[in-house]
Parts: sequence; structure tokens; C-alpha cells
Amino acid sequence: MHTFKVNKSDDSTNARLGEFTTPHGVINTPIFMPVGTNATVKAMTVENLHATGAEVILSNTYHLYLRPGSAVVKQAGGLHKFMGWNKPILTDSGGFQVFSLGQLRKISEEGVKFQSHLDGSYIFLTPESVTGIQEDLGADIIVCFDECTPYPATRAYTESSMEMTHRWAKRCKDAKTRGDQALFGIVQGGMFGELREQSAKEIVSIGFDGYAIGGLSVGETKDMMREMTEAVVEHLPKDKPRYLMGVGTPLDVVEGVMRGIDMFDCVMPTRNARNGSLFTSNGKVVIKNARYANDYTPLDENCGCGTCKNYTKAYLRHLYMAKEILSPILNTIHNLTYYLNLIKRIREAISGGDLNKLRDEIKENEQASLLLSGDKPG
Amino acid sequence: MHTFKVNKSDDSTNARLGEFTTPHGVINTPIFMPVGTNATVKAMTVENLHATGAEVILSNTYHLYLRPGSAVVKQAGGLHKFMGWNKPILTDSGGFQVFSLGQLRKISEEGVKFQSHLDGSYIFLTPESVTGIQEDLGADIIVCFDECTPYPATRAYTESSMEMTHRWAKRCKDAKTRGDQALFGIVQGGMFGELREQSAKEIVSIGFDGYAIGGLSVGETKDMMREMTEAVVEHLPKDKPRYLMGVGTPLDVVEGVMRGIDMFDCVMPTRNARNGSLFTSNGKVVIKNARYANDYTPLDENCGCGTCKNYTKAYLRHLYMAKEILSPILNTIHNLTYYLNLIKRIREAISGGDLNKLRDEIKENEQASLLLSGDKPG
Repeated sequence: MHTFKVNKSDDSTNARLGEFTTPHGVINTPIFMPVGTNATVKAMTVENLHATGAEVILSNTYHLYLRPGSAVVKQAGGLHKFMGWNKPILTDSGGFQVFSLGQLRKISEEGVKFQSHLDGSYIFLTPESVTGIQEDLGADIIVCFDECTPYPATRAYTESSMEMTHRWAKRCKDAKTRGDQALFGIVQGGMFGELREQSAKEIVSIGFDGYAIGGLSVGETKDMMREMTEAVVEHLPKDKPRYLMGVGTPLDVVEGVMRGIDMFDCVMPTRNARNGSLFTSNGKVVIKNARYANDYTPLDENCGCGTCKNYTKAYLRHLYMAKEILSPILNTIHNLTYYLNLIKRIREAISGGDLNKLRDEIKENEQASLLLSGDKPG
Repeated sequence: MHTFKVNKSDDSTNARLGEFTTPHGVINTPIFMPVGTNATVKAMTVENLHATGAEVILSNTYHLYLRPGSAVVKQAGGLHKFMGWNKPILTDSGGFQVFSLGQLRKISEEGVKFQSHLDGSYIFLTPESVTGIQEDLGADIIVCFDECTPYPATRAYTESSMEMTHRWAKRCKDAKTRGDQALFGIVQGGMFGELREQSAKEIVSIGFDGYAIGGLSVGETKDMMREMTEAVVEHLPKDKPRYLMGVGTPLDVVEGVMRGIDMFDCVMPTRNARNGSLFTSNGKVVIKNARYANDYTPLDENCGCGTCKNYTKAYLRHLYMAKEILSPILNTIHNLTYYLNLIKRIREAISGGDLNKLRDEIKENEQASLLLSGDKPG
């Protein structure tokens, strides 16, 4: 039920244009997936989400398993019906969330025992149970249960963790019963190029509908992230989609695309929106800044989203200061439109053969923003 | 620029159908006005607000004066442009908010000195300054600065307060400079029928574009509220719109209509929505109730709003429990649609001559809800 087709490969980079066909429609790649943790992309109605240009969203297995429970979602007819989103959905495996629990979880070959962050109850998840949960949720694309190797980690720990992830990947594939869901394998291997290569080869040898790169964007440098991405992609088949999990900034995304990545997800546009940190063609706008109190211009004159077409920075600042619910709504509409428009421009640049030029523009924009915010450059 | 026309008067009650024409369009009366305190109806985009059937909204002078400041709104081109709402707006005078401050305010003949609830700074408001602020905000309908008499109050206090309100009403009218705004006088008089009559006559003798009844729905019984409404309406001119401020429940609204009221506003549909208390044709639904965890039916099968058409109670409960922003959004879409649909049905019932039947239905619905919630009947 899933097919992936590469329509064009860039001449000077590893970027490619593709079409990933799922039971809920075609995803044009490269693509960015907004994050809808609790079966809702925070602050977005489905109508607003469609207007941003979103083609596929990510939802979190860990959160939905705890609340409302995968049985509730299954009984509702699956995630699409439950949340009213009729385009493709990808669910993660919950591995990242479970392993983020630190002392609250205990790993064994069989699976992971942990305490719910909601009520402290003990839960045991295995590759088999997580696959079953994702089948209940019913996303178009599901992923293997893996250990997201912590950062930093020794080579010995990373290697042994990676090997368990490989055994779990096989168990997930064996546990899969539904034929209408694509299953992605996850490549681990920490910050060791050799292990990344080994992991890619082993996961590919098991054979999946697509390949995810996990364990990056966890605190390493941007150079390291790019080096590890390259180490993996080299050993992935060209005819399957590649997904760089949890990445990233606009620059991370275009750099990933140039290294052959097709899919991305990140909470950055949605979370930053709620914090009043807004992406624009002139760099980042921190909307609470007093300078915007009397600024009657649109947030971004080059943006066609409903927020930029209908409101001024003065109004957006007022809503933010008054803690009005409309603030995260309008900000999220804009930030997601910015990201979806960016990925569309990336696709157009691949098509037109000027991806390097677009990358330079994105880099300049990021540097302008970093100078403004005082953050360290990436 | 404002005209009010009564198209039909009910045979068996004081209800009437009217058209109130403003610079931003015609309001069909009776009408319910959603409350948009901070230049936004909480949780609503303008598109969602239009979809509820809202014809006019109320915004709060007190809140906007403190934040973002009336100068900001004026410079934006007025409230309509600032918030992107192109239909009529009414601003209150801030009297209710200022007098709610209790020990934080000091009343004199000249005006009221009070401390801002935002930063504690001292502010002095007079009938003249409040009229000027409302001219800066630029609503279609503005109201006089009054003292909202506290409840309970002695007859002596109520009378002296009312008399000051009359003098302030005259000052507001004299201070008005814009010709494109309708100015409403406010009738006070507490819970004393004679004073209500006296206040109505004096406010009418000053002469306004419409008449508001203030100081009700402040803790008195429903019977008292209805008695005071009757005492006032009897002395109001038939050719001007009548507005019962801050009212109320669906039953309060229809009972008000039957007594000759044309306009209502209340935070109930919007505030209850955020608390997960939802109006339906089968009575109130408290969405957090565990019984809805597996309820895959719409919130209200008789409602055509986006929430009822696209989502189940199980999903609405999940959003509420997960504290997702989409929860107040979908709940507010429904509750406002319920209220706007109710007032539309009231207009149709006046037209069809069966308003008493509709009142009985609304009363039954309210009693069913009260039995469920354990509240006292009104």
C-alpha cells in the first residue's frame, strides 16, 4: 500500500525529490512533519493545520498509550478518525520518551519498565507491545521500538545499546500484523561513525519500508550531527524514504536535505510559537519585545499565512502579553506556515537546481537571528 | 448613522423583532453578544467567530485601557482593524470592572480613582475620560460611565449612587464628540422598583440612542431580576434598543426577551467552554466526566457546529484531560454556536408566534441540567 518514488536527484548534493504514497495520500518529499503529541497539533484546528500546507503529521505513541489509551483510539476507528485528520500520520515508537525518563525506567533485553509521568503507575513496554499499540493507533507509518542512546555515551555502551536496538528491530518486524502500515527501522550508533555504518547495514539487512536516523539532535554539535547523518545515508537504499528524527532548525533541515534526508519532524515551530518566538524572512521575532507595542506592520511581509495577512505585530504582542489563547493559535499558524513554506521552497530549489543558494539564504537568516537573540551559532 | 426599527411585536409577550443598523452592519435583534474582553473572544479566531453566527461582540474598555492602552488601539485604526473583526462592536464603560475592585477604588462626584489590577498604578477615570477612551477604541456602540450599585445595598445608598449615575450620564452625553457611535444610557436603581422607574425616566429624559439596564445579575434572585427588568422596560421608549447587561443563562435570555429586551451579553458560554461545561439540546455536559471516555457520539446531535460535526465526546474529553489548547477552541466554538443558535430560534419563535413554547423547552433543558449538576434551580 506504500510506494516511494524518487523523481529527481540533485546534481551537486545528495538531495532528492520524491513521492511517498500512503493510504491517506501522497507526501511530497522532502517534507517537514508538524508534531501532534496528544492527537492534536498544539493550538491548531484541523482546518488551520491544512492551511499551513501540512502533508503529514507525527503523533506520539508514548503519550497516546498513557492517555487516552490506545484502546480508546482504536475503538474510535484509529487516530485519523479520532482527531479528524485525513492526511498521513506517522507515530513514533515512544523510545525517545521512555529513555528520557532517566532513573524512572529500567531496560532489559525483553523491554523497558518505567513509571508513567501522569500517575506513577508501572508500565512494561516491549518491541512486540509497542508494535501492537501502533497498530491500534493506526498511523500510516509506524517505527520500531529502539533505545535512543543517551549523549554522551561510551563506545562500549553505544555498541551494546545499538545491538539491542537491532534485535528489537527484528522483533518489531516479526510482530507486525497489519499490511496497510509502513514500518520504518531506526538506525542508532551514537556519535561513532563506524557504529553508524554498522547500524545502517544491519537495519537495512532486516529490511524495512523506510529508514529513520535516531539519536541525533540530542546535544551534539551541528558538525557531528551532519557527520553522523552522512555516515548513515551512504549505506541506505536509494529507493526508500529516509527520516531524520527530531530535526530541527531551518538550517538543520536544509543541511539534512543536502545529505539525502526526505523527512523531518521537530517541536521547534510549534513550541517556539507558544513562547512567542517567531520565524520570519527577516530573522527571529521575539513578539513580547516592547519595540512591537506600536508596530502596525505584519509579522512577515513575505508570508501569506492568515496571521500575516490579517494582523499586526502590535496585536500579536498584545495577545501574548494578555496571555490570550489566540496568541498561540496565531503564532502557531505562522510558524508552521513558515516551516512548510520553507520545505516547499527546498523542493522547488532541488527542482530548479539552486539548493546551495537557498541554503546560504537560510544560513544568513539564522545568523541574523542568532545575533539578535545572543544564542551560540550552530 | 444608527437606526433601530421594530419589525414585529409579539402578541402575548413584550418580545419584539428588530433591526439595529450600525456603521459595521445590521444587527438582528434580539441578539446575544459574545464577550471579547481583550480585543479577542477567548480561544476564537475571527473565522471561527463568524462561523458561530455572531453578529456583534462586546469588548471591555477597562481591560483595553490598561492593556494595550487605548492609544495603541486608536493608532491601529480602532478596535475593528486591530482585531480583524468587521462586524459591529459594543464597548462597555468599565464601570462594572472598576466598581468590582472593592477597596482598591475610591468614588467621588468627579470620578473614580483606582489601582490597576495589572501593575498597581493609580488611575483616575471620569465620565469624560471614559467617553474619550471609548471614542479612541472606536466601537459602533458605546455606553455611559456609571456606578454599578453593589448588591446588597441600602435604599439610601442605591438612590444616591443612582443619582450620581444620572449626572454622569449627562456628562458622558455632553463629552461625546464622534457622530458615528451610538451612545447608550444605563439605568440603575438596584433592587428597588421605584428607583428603577425613576432611573429609567431620568435616563430617557436625557435622551440616548439606546438603553442599557445595569446592576442586575449581581447575586439577586431570578424573580428579582425579572421584576426589575419589567420595572425598567415599561418606561423605555419603544423605538430604541434595550440591552440587559451581563445576562445570562439561556432561560435568563428568553425571559428577558419576553420582557422586551433586545440585546444581551454574558461570559457564560465562553467561560463555561474553557471549564469544559457544555450546553447541549439534552442539557449540560461536563466533558471531563469519565462516562465520556468511550463515548464516540457527537457532543450534540442537534448542533451543526464544526465541533459537533467532526468530533466525538471521547475526543473532546481527551483534549480536556490533556489540557490541550484545542479543548477551549472546540468547546467555545460549540457553546457560542449554541447561544447564537438559541437567539436565532428565539427570533424565529417571535416571528412564528410560539415564543412561550420555546421558553418552556429552554426551561426544561435548564432543569434537566440542574438536576445533573446539583446546582440550585433559578
